Amino acid sequence: MRFVAVYRVRSDAASIEARARAIAIEQSIEAPLEAVRDDYVRSEIVGEPGDIREIAPRLYEVEIGLAAATVGADAGQLLNMLYGNSSLQTDVELADFRLPDEMLARFPGPGQGLAGLRARVGAGTRALSCVAIKPQGLPSAGLAALVEAFARGGVDFIKDDHGLADQAYSPFAERVPACAAAARRAADRTGSLARYVPSLSGHYGAMRDQIAIAREAGLDAVMVAPMIAGLSTCQALAADNRDLAFFAHPTMGGAARIAAPALLRLFRLVGGDVGIFPNYGGRFGYSRETCLALARGLRAPWGGLKDATPTPAGGMTTARVGEMLEFYGPDTMLLIGGALLAAPTDQLTAQTAAFARAVAGGSP
Amino acid sequence: MRFVAVYRVRSDAASIEARARAIAIEQSIEAPLEAVRDDYVRSEIVGEPGDIREIAPRLYEVEIGLAAATVGADAGQLLNMLYGNSSLQTDVELADFRLPDEMLARFPGPGQGLAGLRARVGAGTRALSCVAIKPQGLPSAGLAALVEAFARGGVDFIKDDHGLADQAYSPFAERVPACAAAARRAADRTGSLARYVPSLSGHYGAMRDQIAIAREAGLDAVMVAPMIAGLSTCQALAADNRDLAFFAHPTMGGAARIAAPALLRLFRLVGGDVGIFPNYGGRFGYSRETCLALARGLRAPWGGLKDATPTPAGGMTTARVGEMLEFYGPDTMLLIGGALLAAPTDQLTAQTAAFARAVAGGSP
Repeated sequence: MRFVAVYRVRSDAASIEARARAIAIEQSIEAPLEAVRDDYVRSEIVGEPGDIREIAPRLYEVEIGLAAATVGADAGQLLNMLYGNSSLQTDVELADFRLPDEMLARFPGPGQGLAGLRARVGAGTRALSCVAIKPQGLPSAGLAALVEAFARGGVDFIKDDHGLADQAYSPFAERVPACAAAARRAADRTGSLARYVPSLSGHYGAMRDQIAIAREAGLDAVMVAPMIAGLSTCQALAADNRDLAFFAHPTMGGAARIAAPALLRLFRLVGGDVGIFPNYGGRFGYSRETCLALARGLRAPWGGLKDATPTPAGGMTTARVGEMLEFYGPDTMLLIGGALLAAPTDQLTAQTAAFARAVAGGSP
Repeated sequence: MRFVAVYRVRSDAASIEARARAIAIEQSIEAPLEAVRDDYVRSEIVGEPGDIREIAPRLYEVEIGLAAATVGADAGQLLNMLYGNSSLQTDVELADFRLPDEMLARFPGPGQGLAGLRARVGAGTRALSCVAIKPQGLPSAGLAALVEAFARGGVDFIKDDHGLADQAYSPFAERVPACAAAARRAADRTGSLARYVPSLSGHYGAMRDQIAIAREAGLDAVMVAPMIAGLSTCQALAADNRDLAFFAHPTMGGAARIAAPALLRLFRLVGGDVGIFPNYGGRFGYSRETCLALARGLRAPWGGLKDATPTPAGGMTTARVGEMLEFYGPDTMLLIGGALLAAPTDQLTAQTAAFARAVAGGSP
């Protein structure tokens, strides 16, 4: 059984076939073919170059078939096989990958899917709204006050800034219960509970302890950064906690090395219910086409995996909500960060309410 | 207390100062300055642009001071603060970083250092030799046979190919004791024990179990891939196992996004005794200058951290050993892979011996 890695390779026409063969070796046995004396290795393990297409002058898309047996069921090893050593070569980018269903079934995928997220916050079929608490450096009480103001504004999800970890100024074990309590206080007034989503950090063992703290505080969603934590870590956490929603943050996702749609599908594979990515027109370089392709990849049927919810972020404002919903459609979560925080403190709840209403289909 | 991130930024002269301020915000509070009302955050947490130098036309080196408090003692969070969101912007590369000694003291660094590695294999002051077993797909017995042949040739270290994980064709729990026993059998004949170095995979919990298997087999060194496992994972394993030597493999290290010398120093920071990197003149794009800078960064005094051993690999042959030793000097480990494996099976031990002798200072 083979899976397929798709690379974009800068090359000239005379060299591309040899380059494709070299990548097939690099990403499988990493040894000269003449060093392979074993029939099984030669027929089943050595990478197989497939289609080569010129997609622009001196730019080729190259497919390589790799053995499923080299991956087993570990997402970190999948990434190693897809792009490990080739990531060190400047002429190769990972453009895409395709897994046979039998292989796909080894990975958890999202535990909730969009339908599960909507059901939790009573959203029907509308788009979801999310805000982020920051800046880091605030004490836990300051962050909790933000959660309460946002929650009273009627937003669906309130996530930690991805910079919030386990710092001395707002330790996880102090911040998370405080923010969870703040969301519950707001729910007593609004009648519906905005979900606070704390950010996990450290290694698998540390994150397991953090999940226990989050559960103790009554939370049902957490955020991970797969490219910092490691895909294997995220996979194991998702597999062990099928009732939690996982938000996947793209920090350290790199640019121009792994194509964004492929990266976000890796996040879906290891259990991300929510795939956060830099929106077009913000301060990151993603194009409209990239964002659309990425959203399609998170939603499209994929073996037995649930869908993940495209969640554009970066440079979001309430004024842009209409344009965003037209572009992405309602099967989307919209995440607003700094723009909301720039509001005067006493207007935070009102401005959050305007954002939440706009996302829910009203007017800003 | 501040630490310093150094970025290379493509920009024009008119925009670079504003771009530097934007990066300082992105990598610290990720919110508009007007959203920061807290004095502590404003004075202590917001990133501070420092020196800006034009190093080539439209290419600048920009220093940003970031708060040590944002990192705590977690290497994953260090990477998040150094380059997390900026990694998603195409005009910024992470060129370097500097940590104050007080912050450096929170990280384990190498447990053995070069002196410790040399003492283990009785190498005096000479360079160290290393070979890799591959291709993956071979059964454990086949890999163990390679270990025995290499070990009889008198090499110092024998590491798993970085593609070897926990696959069905050579499960970790079967392969590792088999290879360890093969090294011991060879030692009964040669009188000195070549160190077999298995490759760890999966999350922190899985790696801890693998380390227990390695210890049970009498091994004292393991290999990790920090950019796949996560820096936090490697840091925790190194801190918990100060008597083991850690080999750090650069797979998924990317190219042209984090400067190689900075990447390898991150590996040293989290406990890598051996820093493997693609040698110049091989099939990867590193220049001679990059390789020298990288070797310097692994060896130079750095707070209380032990040194890590520069270990060039990729395209290594016995014929190149003299050139390599002249270039890198004896405080080096030379790693040969595929070239040795291309030898006829019955000449594997003799060719390994020629490589090991060349590294030890004899002639090939």
